[in-house]
Amino acid sequence: MRKVSIVGAAVTKFGEHWSSSFRDLIAEAAVKAVDDAKMDGNEIQAIYGGCMASGRFIGQEHIGALIADQLGMNPLASTRCEAACASGSVALRAGYLAVASGMYDVVAVGGVEKMTEISTEEAAIALGGAGDQEWELFMGATFPALYALLARRHMHEYGTTEEQMAACSVKNHANAVHNPYAQFQRAITIGDVMESGYVATPLKLLDCSPITDGAAAVILCASEHARKHTDAPVEIAASGQASDSLALAQRSSLTELNATKVAARDAFRQANISAKDIQAAEVHDCFSIAEILAIEDLGFFKKGYGGKASIEGETALNSKISINTSGGLKGCGHPVGATGVKQVVEGTMQLRGEAGKRQVPNLTNFLTHNVGGSGATSVVHILKRG
Amino acid sequence: MRKVSIVGAAVTKFGEHWSSSFRDLIAEAAVKAVDDAKMDGNEIQAIYGGCMASGRFIGQEHIGALIADQLGMNPLASTRCEAACASGSVALRAGYLAVASGMYDVVAVGGVEKMTEISTEEAAIALGGAGDQEWELFMGATFPALYALLARRHMHEYGTTEEQMAACSVKNHANAVHNPYAQFQRAITIGDVMESGYVATPLKLLDCSPITDGAAAVILCASEHARKHTDAPVEIAASGQASDSLALAQRSSLTELNATKVAARDAFRQANISAKDIQAAEVHDCFSIAEILAIEDLGFFKKGYGGKASIEGETALNSKISINTSGGLKGCGHPVGATGVKQVVEGTMQLRGEAGKRQVPNLTNFLTHNVGGSGATSVVHILKRG
Repeated sequence: MRKVSIVGAAVTKFGEHWSSSFRDLIAEAAVKAVDDAKMDGNEIQAIYGGCMASGRFIGQEHIGALIADQLGMNPLASTRCEAACASGSVALRAGYLAVASGMYDVVAVGGVEKMTEISTEEAAIALGGAGDQEWELFMGATFPALYALLARRHMHEYGTTEEQMAACSVKNHANAVHNPYAQFQRAITIGDVMESGYVATPLKLLDCSPITDGAAAVILCASEHARKHTDAPVEIAASGQASDSLALAQRSSLTELNATKVAARDAFRQANISAKDIQAAEVHDCFSIAEILAIEDLGFFKKGYGGKASIEGETALNSKISINTSGGLKGCGHPVGATGVKQVVEGTMQLRGEAGKRQVPNLTNFLTHNVGGSGATSVVHILKRG
Repeated sequence: MRKVSIVGAAVTKFGEHWSSSFRDLIAEAAVKAVDDAKMDGNEIQAIYGGCMASGRFIGQEHIGALIADQLGMNPLASTRCEAACASGSVALRAGYLAVASGMYDVVAVGGVEKMTEISTEEAAIALGGAGDQEWELFMGATFPALYALLARRHMHEYGTTEEQMAACSVKNHANAVHNPYAQFQRAITIGDVMESGYVATPLKLLDCSPITDGAAAVILCASEHARKHTDAPVEIAASGQASDSLALAQRSSLTELNATKVAARDAFRQANISAKDIQAAEVHDCFSIAEILAIEDLGFFKKGYGGKASIEGETALNSKISINTSGGLKGCGHPVGATGVKQVVEGTMQLRGEAGKRQVPNLTNFLTHNVGGSGATSVVHILKRG
């Protein structure tokens, strides 16, 4: 396999984009990423796009072709990949393998979702398609309910508290304050979270990531050519992906996501490092409990200690490990198909030293962790300078 | 790039499966393909699945994870790829590149669609997402209308007749008679087509491929290991993909699909052969006019001659070139996400000499051609023995 590096990276502002369409968001992220790579658009040879549920959100499938069309890049091959909220990461992985294989030297990878065109109720149903439609959504279990089950079990087994979960949201908002692309550039307190209304007990409104519009894009090229484009290429040192049952009822444990453990194990093996070599990571905090599961399952903290680590500040910016420097899904926003790519954009900016007030100094490795549904897909990428 | 071969291939019966679910269809195709490869399921290292519009057809996204789950193959990485009616082919291409890259030695690729769970009106809207939602479907242009525009222009420029288009359907039904997996195992006449009701003039009911449930699967492995599994491996000698504008209004020509021409050019270059080296092909006949465009754009016949070639029998089984030996989308059926994989299953059976009464003897190369929407994606694969 050829080595593959990121030579361009960009995101749109995440938020409720009432005056920008799905197509506008794609164009903005892609053009900025190509500019960032200091290349001409016609050097790109193929496109991969992550998008979860455009059929339901905007009545449009065939998103690969739409992206090429919108960017004026016909007749390039352009393919959509989908894995629910991990769609961006599986698109990245497909683009990575396409370059690694030698088929292409330069590809663009985008992630996009426009979620605000339909009502919140319709969005809940669209998002419910990430779980098991027949055994969960049909019975009324939307995503807050599914993650509430995971939270309850973690509280039961490990004594995790609502305040500890709230601490994840508080920390992520604190990081988002320093991210100009974040949906919520404002701090919140544990009190704010505790006083926000219950969505599905024990999860409250401020435990939940928002409905968001946004797009992100990266330009990948064979590492051997990366320095033609940038003085600070970022290598994709590992790409791990794993699956688990769609329905929670089929899982052997509700206090871990096995797909995360397997994807991380594979990624660490590929990069020939271990969890202790990671100083900063973007992890999938679609709900606050998801961040606690992630930092345990990725091996950053012992199982059961994630809540305590969070409330004691061990995951804050420039603490033991900097988790969700971008603000995460909670603070930065969660346009489902874009999130996996946005995580990698954040890692690229951090490794280049371009993250401003949220910069983690002297970074060697950066990990991204993106979950589809309630853990039926998990994707882990490890980035390093080079 | 490593060479990649097909060592297992299977399809379900195509048709209206009132008593088989989306999951049942996947399981049937996958188990048969693994059996066909004479391997144990646990030799498979990753899964790629093509599916177009499951969000609208069955309220379910996250199809990669669902496939792994249904097959009991967690925690394997499993990814859905989508390119409208070319979803199966882009999934195959992703699986091909994953093996070619060296990341995996053995992957399963499936294609599936369950289209009969919703009304025909709802299905027309779901399928309309393959075109340009904003500029076509929203204005009322469903797919028969879009292809009717292509047909009208071809008739105007080249004198193509309704009878010539009808001949494509007649030939494809004739081939389907010999395909036990076909939705319509019965012959029709040009008179039958001409007397069937207009759907969108000049296209009549029997010019249109049907609504179909079905699945198909292939097992890919690095060619160097292929003979461990089969005495008759089939190599993927080329994989070309290209895009064009989503909306017909943006095209420079309505009498050709440029994406097909580009994908074919790339595929022929990769395989180091030309159109004249192809003795048999599966081409995308979602409507009869689409087959005429395909056989011209692929270089089998001169532009404008496709209608005449069809009615004069030059595309019949074991004539000048055997087009749609399976019965094509018209005769075999068109479960949109499955079609691209089914085409490759047919090619595999033909190259192995296992196609029974529809066998084309002494085949060296087999081409598959799969279109997304009205030509915004086109994918061409070339298969050969080895």
